Formats: sequence, structure tokens, C-alpha cells
Amino acid sequence: MTTAPLPPSRRRTMRLQEASLLEGPMLLLRSIRGFSSNRSITWLACVPFALFGLGVFNLSAHAADLPELTPGFLANNLWLLIAAVLVIFMNAGFAMVEAGMCRQKNAVNILAKNLFVFTLAVTAYWFIGFQIMYKADWVIPGVLKFGGLFFDPAVTAGMVTNGDLVPSVDFLFQAAFAGTAATIVSGLVAERIKFGEFVVFSLILTAFIYPIAGSWQWNGDGWLAEAGFIDFAGSTLVHSVGAWAGLVGAIALGPRIGKFVGGKAQALPGHNMAIATLGCLILWIGWYGFNAGSQLAMDAAVPYIAVTTTLAAAGGAIGATIISTLYSGKPDLTMIINGILAGLVSITAGCDGVAMWAAWLIGLIGGVIVVFSVAFIDGLQVDDPVGAFSVHGTCGIWGTLAVGLFNTDAGLLTGHGFSQLGVQALGCISYAVFIVVSCWIAWSVIGALFGGIRVTEAEEIEGLDIGEHGMEAYPDFASAGN
Amino acid sequence: MTTAPLPPSRRRTMRLQEASLLEGPMLLLRSIRGFSSNRSITWLACVPFALFGLGVFNLSAHAADLPELTPGFLANNLWLLIAAVLVIFMNAGFAMVEAGMCRQKNAVNILAKNLFVFTLAVTAYWFIGFQIMYKADWVIPGVLKFGGLFFDPAVTAGMVTNGDLVPSVDFLFQAAFAGTAATIVSGLVAERIKFGEFVVFSLILTAFIYPIAGSWQWNGDGWLAEAGFIDFAGSTLVHSVGAWAGLVGAIALGPRIGKFVGGKAQALPGHNMAIATLGCLILWIGWYGFNAGSQLAMDAAVPYIAVTTTLAAAGGAIGATIISTLYSGKPDLTMIINGILAGLVSITAGCDGVAMWAAWLIGLIGGVIVVFSVAFIDGLQVDDPVGAFSVHGTCGIWGTLAVGLFNTDAGLLTGHGFSQLGVQALGCISYAVFIVVSCWIAWSVIGALFGGIRVTEAEEIEGLDIGEHGMEAYPDFASAGN
Amino acid sequence: MTTAPLPPSRRRTMRLQEASLLEGPMLLLRSIRGFSSNRSITWLACVPFALFGLGVFNLSAHAADLPELTPGFLANNLWLLIAAVLVIFMNAGFAMVEAGMCRQKNAVNILAKNLFVFTLAVTAYWFIGFQIMYKADWVIPGVLKFGGLFFDPAVTAGMVTNGDLVPSVDFLFQAAFAGTAATIVSGLVAERIKFGEFVVFSLILTAFIYPIAGSWQWNGDGWLAEAGFIDFAGSTLVHSVGAWAGLVGAIALGPRIGKFVGGKAQALPGHNMAIATLGCLILWIGWYGFNAGSQLAMDAAVPYIAVTTTLAAAGGAIGATIISTLYSGKPDLTMIINGILAGLVSITAGCDGVAMWAAWLIGLIGGVIVVFSVAFIDGLQVDDPVGAFSVHGTCGIWGTLAVGLFNTDAGLLTGHGFSQLGVQALGCISYAVFIVVSCWIAWSVIGALFGGIRVTEAEEIEGLDIGEHGMEAYPDFASAGN
Repeated sequence: MTTAPLPPSRRRTMRLQEASLLEGPMLLLRSIRGFSSNRSITWLACVPFALFGLGVFNLSAHAADLPELTPGFLANNLWLLIAAVLVIFMNAGFAMVEAGMCRQKNAVNILAKNLFVFTLAVTAYWFIGFQIMYKADWVIPGVLKFGGLFFDPAVTAGMVTNGDLVPSVDFLFQAAFAGTAATIVSGLVAERIKFGEFVVFSLILTAFIYPIAGSWQWNGDGWLAEAGFIDFAGSTLVHSVGAWAGLVGAIALGPRIGKFVGGKAQALPGHNMAIATLGCLILWIGWYGFNAGSQLAMDAAVPYIAVTTTLAAAGGAIGATIISTLYSGKPDLTMIINGILAGLVSITAGCDGVAMWAAWLIGLIGGVIVVFSVAFIDGLQVDDPVGAFSVHGTCGIWGTLAVGLFNTDAGLLTGHGFSQLGVQALGCISYAVFIVVSCWIAWSVIGALFGGIRVTEAEEIEGLDIGEHGMEAYPDFASAGN
Repeated sequence: MTTAPLPPSRRRTMRLQEASLLEGPMLLLRSIRGFSSNRSITWLACVPFALFGLGVFNLSAHAADLPELTPGFLANNLWLLIAAVLVIFMNAGFAMVEAGMCRQKNAVNILAKNLFVFTLAVTAYWFIGFQIMYKADWVIPGVLKFGGLFFDPAVTAGMVTNGDLVPSVDFLFQAAFAGTAATIVSGLVAERIKFGEFVVFSLILTAFIYPIAGSWQWNGDGWLAEAGFIDFAGSTLVHSVGAWAGLVGAIALGPRIGKFVGGKAQALPGHNMAIATLGCLILWIGWYGFNAGSQLAMDAAVPYIAVTTTLAAAGGAIGATIISTLYSGKPDLTMIINGILAGLVSITAGCDGVAMWAAWLIGLIGGVIVVFSVAFIDGLQVDDPVGAFSVHGTCGIWGTLAVGLFNTDAGLLTGHGFSQLGVQALGCISYAVFIVVSCWIAWSVIGALFGGIRVTEAEEIEGLDIGEHGMEAYPDFASAGN
Repeated sequence: MTTAPLPPSRRRTMRLQEASLLEGPMLLLRSIRGFSSNRSITWLACVPFALFGLGVFNLSAHAADLPELTPGFLANNLWLLIAAVLVIFMNAGFAMVEAGMCRQKNAVNILAKNLFVFTLAVTAYWFIGFQIMYKADWVIPGVLKFGGLFFDPAVTAGMVTNGDLVPSVDFLFQAAFAGTAATIVSGLVAERIKFGEFVVFSLILTAFIYPIAGSWQWNGDGWLAEAGFIDFAGSTLVHSVGAWAGLVGAIALGPRIGKFVGGKAQALPGHNMAIATLGCLILWIGWYGFNAGSQLAMDAAVPYIAVTTTLAAAGGAIGATIISTLYSGKPDLTMIINGILAGLVSITAGCDGVAMWAAWLIGLIGGVIVVFSVAFIDGLQVDDPVGAFSVHGTCGIWGTLAVGLFNTDAGLLTGHGFSQLGVQALGCISYAVFIVVSCWIAWSVIGALFGGIRVTEAEEIEGLDIGEHGMEAYPDFASAGN
């Protein structure tokens, strides 16, 4: 780094990335071998990665000299980089919301899950997920891509001339999305799942299940894209996928001790509303990257998408606050938080293609729905500690269907008939079926291999922080003893 | 979203936003009708919005095909979008500072206020405030605009050619400012105001009072702009407006129980210095959007404004720390926090037009002033729980006057006579009078309609979290019992 | 601020920054004089600044009319401004990590240190540090620059034509780095250092020691730059410099009471894992500014640097988690946090010039190393409360050496011989020697002048929050009494 004017070679060319003889992977392999002898056999799941790795670490990216960078190239890549940073920041938001809405005795576990899972998601998505979702050839056309690992980060002159995204920023943005899907699962299985088993599931989800699901729509020739399904930024592809994956986990786990007494749902209040609120606001700004970044370019539509996103968040808060006040007589902060998130999830599928009033209304309805959904899920005796299925699943579906109602080019309420709404429903159902089935298999295999996915009763009562991590989140504070 | 190269139609044109037959508003109306029968009659305030809505939800924005996007258009709109996100992130900063500096028993209430009020501010400003502040015709020239709702998000070829901001990003940036004004009020009325009544006041402030005040200066033909008043980013227009609005509320409410005993102010320490400090640093970075974004373009002056903003924050911290150490013998963390915020508020009016040394000095003096102002407000037996009037009001005025002293083109100390200083004083006084009068009316009417704006003594002693929201912020922690 | 189209004069030209007759500095001087009579004589250190100030506040920046802003100029300056904001946000990350990993009774002190020191660092670096590091002439060629204060923010037509960074954004980015170096020290000396004495050391570090060290490498004609040393974004220049400076302080202070009992290190657990995790994620996103911003331009390499940074963070978390699980049987959240930070520090020197697999591996090894380093430092009976030397020092050195192993143009493992590795080692040693010697002198002089740098035993046991600041971080919460 220097403040002196840089020579053109430093400023305008891509650095060379060459392969080399590798000692590193051997080291890694030894670490992992040692590790697999540990009590947590679940870590064995890392071994295939290392084995694969030995063959394919030969990545290189020789960049030719590039032409003068065009305004579009600069703006598109800068915006997507910033959008990726905003989406990555959402990890902090999810961690704070989930930890804040759970009990103190499980806070370390939740924080550790959120932090560690993102690092695994990035690794798995870099290793193979990105290829499966976008880069490999179709093995089953429109349904399954496979072949190849990692990606080639080389920047070509053509990319500069066309104003294309460089492969690195494309990867980073998509990897952040993969991490989001895994994080949503975390909320549904909170306060009772074993750490190691959750880690293995996250690897499977981000390496295989999420990328396969994503490939159907976000490739121009995926089968759902060809069917005309619209999910601009992922109400279904990210949010409901994560929610279904987590729901299967929550059902497999069963409810937390004390959640249902005599068939009635009990409140197990979250331990820290300050960080939950902070997390909500971090997620809010992160969503500008999530939604407006999904334009995959800096253009005139990007700020409009930011506005629809904002209005839906506002509508969601208002809807959830009104309904929760009607029911309980008082505005519940957790419902304001979930209302905002509900509004944001609801607008995600259609944020680029609906009118502003429709965006606000989609958010408002999302905020209303989320309150009823929480009650409905409770009624099913499924334990979703932070309302993650209601926020990401129910509202993810609502947002996807809302495209069929409000999209200005294809919506029923904008005078275009039922056809788009039907395709949207087809997409929602297809994803639900695929995710439920594949995740049921994944959770079952993990449970069978590692002796169950749930912690012991004693550990759950004491708190997972001690049992899974041997530490407390707030050791200097006296507990209220509840 | 796809990583394949996008067709030009997706990348370079604005999506169509059409109107439609509306079922949504009917649904909304029904919700609100049900809601108004609830104990909190204050919600009735939402009804006019819905009624208005029925007539005007017909928003559409057909965008013509746009020419090649110019470098200026791309950079200006990208920068303002990022600036808007930074200003929106300030909501997290305000929520953390205010909650952290108040007592644990009122934390949920403060968090809920900050979160919900921003969603209302965005809605109200979108509904009518933006029109009143910038877009409508003058009804009283230079003083009052009125007519029209919402805004037209259409992007024209001329905007692209001229490098103009698109309407959406302009709105989003301005809406974030409106939210800031409302949030400042929250600090002054904390720990004793009813939630519903505060919500109604916020709607009035962001829909009408703040936009009218803003229109005087931030339109080229507002009466104060024509008088030569300078308030680049809102020391007066946002910060002192919010502070005066809150001061009237604080006086109307009276002090918290236990704040003044035998005529002497008592310390009621904040409950969480970690989140208060975090909030301060979030506000700091948010201010780069607030101040440097107010250039409303990406140009050579933007980084300079970021530097003056930084130096003023540094000066403010140093000034407040020195003075508070002189007085109490020890550097008080809340004073370091308020000193930074004081420096930031103080530079806001003049950040684009003063020398670097002047920026640091303006901040330093702001940091000194804020300490004395806190003592002065206490001496008046007005209860400002987090020092919001001192930070935003006193330093807002100081920063506005400082333009008359230090502005390189017009300041007294830069050799340009008293004229600018006089205009700055005129502006400060005009805003004070308008806000105090209009807010006094607003608070009085709200109090009269809804049976007072203050919670009961019993509720205040127990804490507003239970009384207003039926929940605790930290239920798993034992209370210190103070 | 106005939404009406701005006249070209406002949009396209730099504001004039003129000097003036100064009353301000006199005021400042009087404040500081009064302050120096206070118990904390340490503040006297501010006086030379004020004296210097009287002579040199004559800063002006007349900007000529600028030509049409070029795409490169717009993109480069916008990206660096955003990168600077991200790096400044790292202050929040460091504050949360350090406070969260220390005990509740010292939280206010840690928060106050982090907050206040950044404001001093900015001031000192603006006053003289930036000149010493980059702008002044060499007094000893390649080794020491001196002469001149502040910097000239004027933007010239040539800068626009060449797409150069404007001086303001260059300063802001570099000042944020200086603040980072000072903040790292804070972690090593936590929970036992006097506030005032730490403040004085920070001034010396950011005004003189760090800038001198930096000048050797980040000027094209510094002696280490000419020797071929590579430290792209500061594994050594920022991280290990801060770590060595703090290590000397930690040794001079001695360990905290109770840290070593019978020669064995005792765990003194951090009080708030929620904010520590949040801080880690804030640092993660801040690092995109730190590393990718160090390209000092927006170009095709920037997103690639963001990818290597991300992969190293992921690798670091995985490495530290595996090793800490192997050792203790359970994944320790503080080790996941430190693993991420270790990965980030490790990739900082070489983030622009290594392959992706190498980035992940460098991070992984960093994550492994950090666990052993913590044990090693404990074994030396040096008390590093948050593991700052292990993260920033050990991994800073590792990252610097890793350039000699993995850099695609010069690394041993990429087939280029030992030469680069030797230069990297030379750089690491040179910085270690210079920082240890200069900081030993600085800490000794401060200790001698002000009666020691450590708080009393009674104060340490009670907590520095009461002793140094007269307040508690969480007064409404009951203490666990440990």
C-alpha cells in the first residue's frame, strides 16, 4: 500500500494466481485425521473435502492485460462488492436476532453456530456449491449440474468491455446467499441440537442441496426459469429453502423441554431484546445488498428496489404491530422485529417488479401473516424457537405468490390472469417437496450415523453453552434462575 | 438472479410499475377499523392515511428506454444509495445509544419506539411528507407546499444524461433524514411516555411538521434559502428540529419520578454501556452518509466532507472528555459518547465549507458545550434522560452559528463580517419558534384526545416494558434491584 | 441540501478552504491549561499539540475548477471512501471483541479506551503522523521523514485526469489504519492500565512510532520497500506493530491479579460473548475495507482480494475450531472468534498475490497457530487478556512469511526460491526490533513521569470502571459475584 501514484501495472491488471507444489493440503489432512479420532465423529464429514482437495488445488488465473475499465464495469463490480459485504453483514444480524430471542443458557451455542456455519458455508460453496448452482454442465438438463470444483477468478478483456461482473464478486455475492440459507436453519433447531451434527448438515445443505435447488431458477435454463417462475432475490430460493430445511430438523428434533405443556404452547422468552433489535436493523440494511444487489448491476432500477424493500419492511412492522396489539392488547417487540423481517422476506421475490403501494401492502400482509403463522406452527406442536419458519417459510411463500398477484407485467391484480400465479405456486410446491425430502434424508442419515441429533435432557436443561462449549455467555452476571 | 450475462433489457432499463385494481387497501382498512376499537384509541390516527390511500394508490412509473448510463449518473446514484443505507443504519445507533443510556426496565419500550417509529416515518414521509418538503407547489410561496401524495419513481433519459439522482434514491435518502428527526424526539421523552401517543406524534412530525420546516431551506426557493441561510446537512433542519420537538414533549411530560429530589438533579445511570458505545460508533459511520451524502452527488468534495466530519467527531470527544474530567476528576464514558455526537452534530451545518482546523475546533467546542448544556438543562429541572437536547439542540444551534463564524466564503472569522452570522441566528430562531409552537399544539391535542401522554406512576415505577409491552428485555438476568 | 438539480458549481468543484484569524486555538489552549492542573498530569501531553497548532492552523485549499470527472476518478475515490468507512467501523468491532472478552468490572474502561483512542489517533495522525508516514521529505533517506504538519486537501485537475485518489480520502483511509494499530495495543494492556497513561502512549504511537514504521514500506522509496519486502495491507505494518507495542506494555505492566496462580495460567472468562461475536463479524466486514481498500483503486483485483480475505477468515475459523476441539473436547467460541481474526490477519500481507486455495490454507494455518500461540504466551507468564498478541502478532508474522511461501510471483512454494522469504523475515525482525525498543522507551518514560502505568491493587480488584471512570457498565444487573 502506498500513497504515491501507483504504476499502471498495479492499478489496472489482475494479479497472477498460480498453482504450486502443495505442502498445505498434507498438513490439513493430518489435522483432519487427528481430529476424526475425537469424540465427535461427525467431523469425519470433512475428510472427503480434503481428499477431493488433493486433486484439485491446482487453480490458476492468469489475467491478460486489461483494457481501460469502462464506467459500467467499475460501477457494476463496485456495487456488487458492496452488496456482498452487506449480505455478509447479515450474519451478524441473524446471530443477534437468534441469540437475543433464545435463552441465556444457550447463547454461546447459538452464536457459535452462526459464526462457524458461515465459515463452513463459504468453504463448501467455494469448494463445490458454486459449480453445482451455476458453473458446471447440466447432468440432468434443467435439474442437476455437476462436474468441476472451485471457480476460475480470471478477468478477461471481454468482461471489462461488456461491463460484466468479475467471477470473484459473483462468487462472493452468491456465497453470502448460501450462508443465509444455512443460517435460517439455525433458528429452527435452536436450543436442542448437537453442535457437530448441525455443522455436518450445514455442509450438506450449502454444498449440495441449496445449490441444486438454486440451479433450477437462477440459471436462465433451469427448469423453473424456463417455466417462467419469478423469484428475483430469493423469497423461495433462499428463505423458504432454509425454512423448510430447518422445519424438517425441528420436527425430527421434537420440541424443547417445557415448550408444550398439556398440549399448550408456553412462552420461553428471549434473553436479550437489545441485541435482537440490533440484529433486526442490521438485517434491514443487509437486505439492501440482498435485494438491490440481486439486480447484479448498478443501474436505474437498483434504487427503486431499495425503495420497495424499505416500504415492505415498514409495512411489515405496521401489520405485525397492529395485529399483535389487537390480540394481546400490547405491541410485542418480538412481533415488531418479526414483522419487519416478514415484510423484507415477503418483498424479496418481487422487489424489482411491483408498484410502491404494492410493496408496502405485500409487506403489511406479510407482517399480518407472520403473527398468525407463529400461532399456527405452535398449534401444530412444532417448536420453532424464534419464529424462523413463519418469517422465512410462510412469508417466503407469500412473497413468491405475491409476484403472481402484483407483478406489473404478469400479476393477477394488474390484469394479467392467473397464469403467473400458477407458476409461482408450482415453484413453491416444487421447492417444498424437494427440500423436505432431501433434508429428511440428510437429517436421518446424520442422526443414524452419529447417534441422534439432539442433546441429552440433562444437557438441555443445564443449557447447551456448558454442554456443547464448556463456557457461559455472561459469567459475571447473576442468573434470574428461571 | 442469474450469473449468466444479463440481457440488456434487464440491465439497462427501469422496470415498469403499473397501477391495478386494488384489493389491498380494503384489507388494510378492515385491519385498521378493527384496530381502532382497541383500548389504544390513538391508533385511529392511521385511519386518514387509509382513506387518503384509497384514492391515490394509483401510482405508475413507465420508464422509457434509457440511454447508456453516464459515469456521473452511475457514481452519483451509487453513492447516494450507499449514503442512504448508512443513514438508515443510524437507527440502530440511536436505538443502542438511547436504550443503553436508560434503565433496564424501560429498554424494550425504547427499542420498540426506535424500531417502530422509523417504519412509520418512512410510511408517512412516502405518503405525504416528501411532497410537502420538496415536490408539491408552494401554497404560500417559500413557506408552505401542499398538494399531491407519494412520488413518481420514473427515470427519464434526461436524468441519465445529466447525471441526476433518480427519484427513488432521492426519496430514500430524504426519508432516512425524516426518520432521524423523529428518533431524536424519542430520547427526550424516554422512560415516561405512552407508546401509542408517541407513535401518533411521530406521524404528525414526519408527515407535516418536519417537511414544512425542511421546505424553507432545502428548496432553492424556500424563504430561508433565499435569505441566505446555510445548513448543509441539517444541524438545524434535522437535529435542532428533533430536539425542540422533543423538548416540548419533555416539558409537557414533566420529569421522571426520582430525577429531581429537593430541586437537585439525580443521576439515573444507563443500564448498558456496551450497546451505548456501539451505538455511538454506528452513528459515527452513519454520519458519513448523513453529511457527505448531503452533497447529493459523488464528486471531489465528498471525501473532504468526510474528513471534516471525522475531525469534528474527534474534537468533540476530546473537548467533552477534558471538561468532564476537569469537573468530576474522571473521564465519564457517557460524556465521551455525547462529545462525539456533539462534534458530529456541530459540524453538520458547515461540513462542506470550513477549513479542517475549523472543523476540529467546531467539534471541540461542541464537545465542551454539551457538558455545560447537560448541566444547564438539569438546572432548568427539565428531564432529558439521554442528553438529547444538549447534543442535538444546543450543538445543532452551535453548529449553525459556527457556519457564520468559520465558513470560508462568509464567516466572521474568515473576514466576511457579521451578515452571515445574523442570517444563521435568524434561521435558528425561526425554526425554534415554529417547532415549539407547532409541537406544543400537537402534544396538547394528542394529550387532550387520548387522556394524557404520560404513563401512570405505578407503570413508570415498574417500568414501561411491562406496562406498555408486557415483556422484559433481559428476563434471564437477575436485577440489581435499584 | 436540495433535491432540485444542483448548479454545476456545487456539484463539480471543490469548496474553498481558507485560513482566518484564529480565536479558536486560544480557547483550546485555555482549556488545556486548566486541564493540566488536574490530578491527571498525563494530559500535559496535549500541550505541545496546542502550541504547534498556533503556528500552523493556516491551512487552505483553493481548488481550481476541475474538468469533467473521469470514471476512474469517481470509482477510485468512491471505493476508497467506502473502504475508509469500513475500516473506521472496525473500531466498533475491536471495542466489542475486547470488552466482551474481558470482565464486566472493566467494561466501561475498555469501551472508553477504544472510543477515545480513535479520536486521539485521528487527531495525532492528522496533526503530524500522516506527514511523517507519507508526505514529508526524508531526513534520513528511506528511514525517517520529517517536516510539515497537516496536509493540503486541494484537488487538482491532474488528479481528476489521472483518476488519482484525492488527498482527503487518502488521509481518511490511512488515519483509520493508524487508529487500528492503537486499538490493538488496548487489548494487551486491558484490565490493569491507567486510562490517562494509555492515552498518552496512544498519542505517541499514532503521531510518531507507527508513522515512522509505516514509512519504511508503504512509500515506494522506503528502505524495506526497496529491499523488496511485501506487506500489501499490513499484517506486519499494522497488526504486528500494534501487537509488539502492546506486548511491551503488557510485560511492563505485569499480569492481572489472579491470572497466574502457582505458575499456571487461570481462565478469567470474558463477560459478554454476544458482543464479542458481534465484534468479530463487524471486524470481518471491516476487513474488506482494510484489505481490498489497500488496492487504493477500484479495479479488477479488488473483488479478488475480497475473496481471498473471505476464504482466509473461513479457514481460520475451521483451523482454530478443529484444534481447540481436539484439545478441550469442545469447540470454544472465543477460539472460533480468534480463529476468524487470525485468518484475517494472516491473509492481510498477501491478500492480493496468492491463489485462492493458498488464501484458505494461510487462514487455516493462522487459525491453528493462534491456539498454540495463546498457550505459548500463557506459558511465558505474559498476560494478554484477549489473545491480541497471538492474533495480531503471531499471525501477523505468519501472514508476512506466508507471502514468501505462497505469493504467485515470488513464493518458495510457487517455485521462486528462498529469496522473498528471507526478505519477509528481515522485515518482520526489523519491525519487531524497532517497535520493541521504541515502545519500551515510551512506556518507561510515561511510567517514570506519571508515577507508573498500572492502577492500584485495590482499584484492579474493584474494577477499573469505578476507579478510572466512576461508573458501572451494567448498574441494573446483579453481579454473579465472581
